[in-house]
Amino acid sequence: MALRSRCPNVKISVWGRSEERLKEVLSRGLADSASTDPVAAAHGAGLVILCTPVGSMTEIGALLAGKLSPGAIVTDAGSVKLCVTEKLAPLFGGRFVGGHPMAGSERSGLAAARSDLFNGAPCILTPLPTTDPFALQAVGAFWTSLGAAITTMTPGEHDRLVARMSHLPHALAFALVNLAKQSLPEDSLKLAGGSFRGATRVASSSPKLWSGILIENRRETASALREMSGLLDSIAESLDQEQSDSLLDFLTRAKEYRDSLPLPAHDELS
Amino acid sequence: MALRSRCPNVKISVWGRSEERLKEVLSRGLADSASTDPVAAAHGAGLVILCTPVGSMTEIGALLAGKLSPGAIVTDAGSVKLCVTEKLAPLFGGRFVGGHPMAGSERSGLAAARSDLFNGAPCILTPLPTTDPFALQAVGAFWTSLGAAITTMTPGEHDRLVARMSHLPHALAFALVNLAKQSLPEDSLKLAGGSFRGATRVASSSPKLWSGILIENRRETASALREMSGLLDSIAESLDQEQSDSLLDFLTRAKEYRDSLPLPAHDELS
Repeated sequence: MALRSRCPNVKISVWGRSEERLKEVLSRGLADSASTDPVAAAHGAGLVILCTPVGSMTEIGALLAGKLSPGAIVTDAGSVKLCVTEKLAPLFGGRFVGGHPMAGSERSGLAAARSDLFNGAPCILTPLPTTDPFALQAVGAFWTSLGAAITTMTPGEHDRLVARMSHLPHALAFALVNLAKQSLPEDSLKLAGGSFRGATRVASSSPKLWSGILIENRRETASALREMSGLLDSIAESLDQEQSDSLLDFLTRAKEYRDSLPLPAHDELS
Repeated sequence: MALRSRCPNVKISVWGRSEERLKEVLSRGLADSASTDPVAAAHGAGLVILCTPVGSMTEIGALLAGKLSPGAIVTDAGSVKLCVTEKLAPLFGGRFVGGHPMAGSERSGLAAARSDLFNGAPCILTPLPTTDPFALQAVGAFWTSLGAAITTMTPGEHDRLVARMSHLPHALAFALVNLAKQSLPEDSLKLAGGSFRGATRVASSSPKLWSGILIENRRETASALREMSGLLDSIAESLDQEQSDSLLDFLTRAKEYRDSLPLPAHDELS
């Protein structure tokens, strides 16, 4: 939708599992062609973008390897980069560039699509030393043309960062909801204020997608969860001992850093 | 502001520490009179509403005790109820009704005021067996007239509930920001997506106000923090052991419960 509206002359071919949804994509003019066969959908493409759950990317990548046009560039939009890069780079060599547009929300599917989704959103690219510089530039130009702001880092740096900036907040949201469910009377949800709503919004995300992401990034996410658990225990300790000064200092440091967060491009980035 | 707009005939007298801010309140027509002396501000009032940080309420309550009109009803808007009720009920007897309008945001001060703040917001009242039923009814009618929806429970039930629905999400927000600050490169904040923003919005709240609230409700908040810490450790354990099924089940239960959350009256309740 974003590509169609910003680059109307680009030819778009879409792959999907459901004939019905592909028909809807075509009837809404969002693509020029569509197929449930990945090889047919990617036929003749100059840039192939894999946007499936990370667990499915190797399988699709293996189907496409050796079947693409000479010089075709391959990228992905997965939330974890080390495992994806390790599996896809060997299939496509220097023409593969790992990517992670950090946009989206707890909603999914065609009904949640919006043409301004990437406008001002960060997009992380994770080239390897073996990545073709032209391929990196082309993938960067693609996301920039959709309005995203490119940052590059290694796949490992990416996974460490998103474990703390995205996967941990998601895990906290799911855990906070289950804690309320198991420890409070049934009708307590009607008393939820903004802090609970804000902290748990993403607990409405797809459980299947998110269990996949957390498992794929399990090493970094488990570390982040344990760091968080340690911080929470130390806050509880400060409370037990009524250490107002160290608590105030902890909250003050957090407020200062949070207040330095640049304003969002729009409200629904994930 | 809400009272002025919804009940224009009610006479409003305001107490505050700063002459300058009281002048602004008067010049904007938000009150009929104002004073930096609590006794003068409460003179002749039928309903006295204490809205200071919970740590200051006993002091102000002690100044007012014995100085109010006969039959005056006293309530408060504090985020913790057990400690406040224990201190204020003896001062005002059955005429004191503990209250907690669950509205507000990370912003504070006159610039953050809005006349629709309480519209559709939950308001918890925490009467004791000794509370005068007429006083309870009057305080309920006051908040209802501002658009809030009343729920009653004991002070202890309130503190247990808000520890998990509000104080824990606030503590998580502060901790999540500090975790990012201490474990990621300095410019990482620009990569924050919606889940980090949503989970940490309230870390911009007043550190002084919130260290006070967490300390006042320390027993319940410390319990909630330790329950959360245990949940996070168990998620980390599931990740270590790649237990996708139990993780998927955990996330699915959370999504179902979160999806049952009634829609908010407006976006900025806290």
